[in-house]
Amino acid sequence: MRTLRVPEATINRLSVYSRFLEQLNRKGVVTVSSVEIAKGVGVGPAQVRKDLAYFGEFGTRGVGYNVKDLMRYTIKILGIDKPWPLILVGAGNLGFALSTYKGFNQRGFSIVGVIDNDPNKIGKKIGNLEIFPLEKMADIIKRHNVRIGIIAVTQNAAQEVADLMVKNGLQAILNYAPVALNIPDNVELQHVDMSVKLETLTFNLSKKNYRP
Amino acid sequence: MRTLRVPEATINRLSVYSRFLEQLNRKGVVTVSSVEIAKGVGVGPAQVRKDLAYFGEFGTRGVGYNVKDLMRYTIKILGIDKPWPLILVGAGNLGFALSTYKGFNQRGFSIVGVIDNDPNKIGKKIGNLEIFPLEKMADIIKRHNVRIGIIAVTQNAAQEVADLMVKNGLQAILNYAPVALNIPDNVELQHVDMSVKLETLTFNLSKKNYRP
Repeated sequence: MRTLRVPEATINRLSVYSRFLEQLNRKGVVTVSSVEIAKGVGVGPAQVRKDLAYFGEFGTRGVGYNVKDLMRYTIKILGIDKPWPLILVGAGNLGFALSTYKGFNQRGFSIVGVIDNDPNKIGKKIGNLEIFPLEKMADIIKRHNVRIGIIAVTQNAAQEVADLMVKNGLQAILNYAPVALNIPDNVELQHVDMSVKLETLTFNLSKKNYRP
Repeated sequence: MRTLRVPEATINRLSVYSRFLEQLNRKGVVTVSSVEIAKGVGVGPAQVRKDLAYFGEFGTRGVGYNVKDLMRYTIKILGIDKPWPLILVGAGNLGFALSTYKGFNQRGFSIVGVIDNDPNKIGKKIGNLEIFPLEKMADIIKRHNVRIGIIAVTQNAAQEVADLMVKNGLQAILNYAPVALNIPDNVELQHVDMSVKLETLTFNLSKKNYRP
């Protein structure tokens, strides 16, 4: 597969296309054009074609893409054609929200362990999952063969949690704490900033004010 | 200002640079190079220079950027040199998490109204804020001069909430529900997908497996 130099923005959009294709498939739609995908997810049609072209030749000119085939292919490219167990560190409001977030389960992710350092939370349940202390992280990772950890702690605690995740052999970290983390190069890191997109909105609204 | 054709990815990165500059400023750092900014936020130095070049000439060759000046300028470009009141619809786990999210307040955003349609939640408090019914949306928007609404409801309820926000004159919507929304062209829309970045991680981890 020609996946060596795929821009990260393309991978992000591929996730979005993939979800949209799942929606279409659930509705029983059989074929879809790049124009329809573009409209459904809010990008340009040329962008859709360019993004998909990184991964091969899809679709038939004048007919479009087969929804089920393209959906399955995007799922395979994204590596989510198999289940991914996750650990979640931080059982605060955000941790609760993430542990019940439908967007994870829909895509084959399952949180297999929730960890917190608050003695008042340890032993309690978050959904079906017991909250464990930090000392149990290694056990949970080993038992469930976990490769990805989610950080949903405060910004002050995030680096310490990341260090512990790295020490325990996790290969990838998804960070929701509003802080930059130092991570070895061989560990994948993604940061979900809950407010960056808000500033895209204020940028656009402010621009409108000083443009006639 | 030359802001007509700024790519959205540049605006997103500008938010990230801006926060990093705030961190440096709090630490008392006076000047910073594009290489240091790049390292601090995890992009290439050429990208930093290219992104900033959309907005003018900054920095001095061989010296770098003045941290405080560049920080203030990014804040102005992003439109957050003034406070933005927000309404939040959805007082579930995610709503709770967002209403206490430090990343908002740090950047001058303040949630001035929380709204939910659950009779068991209405009248209760989320932090300092009372939870109001949907019928109060118009009042809150008017009273606080709100232009931006946050959707933190389930995917089934999201479109209905968006319609109501549009009807009540909001100019921008930040959507956390895992579903695409139909919004008039004159209303700004951004979607925070809590799991797209997770699929960037699985893409990268899967790639590693089939590349030697």
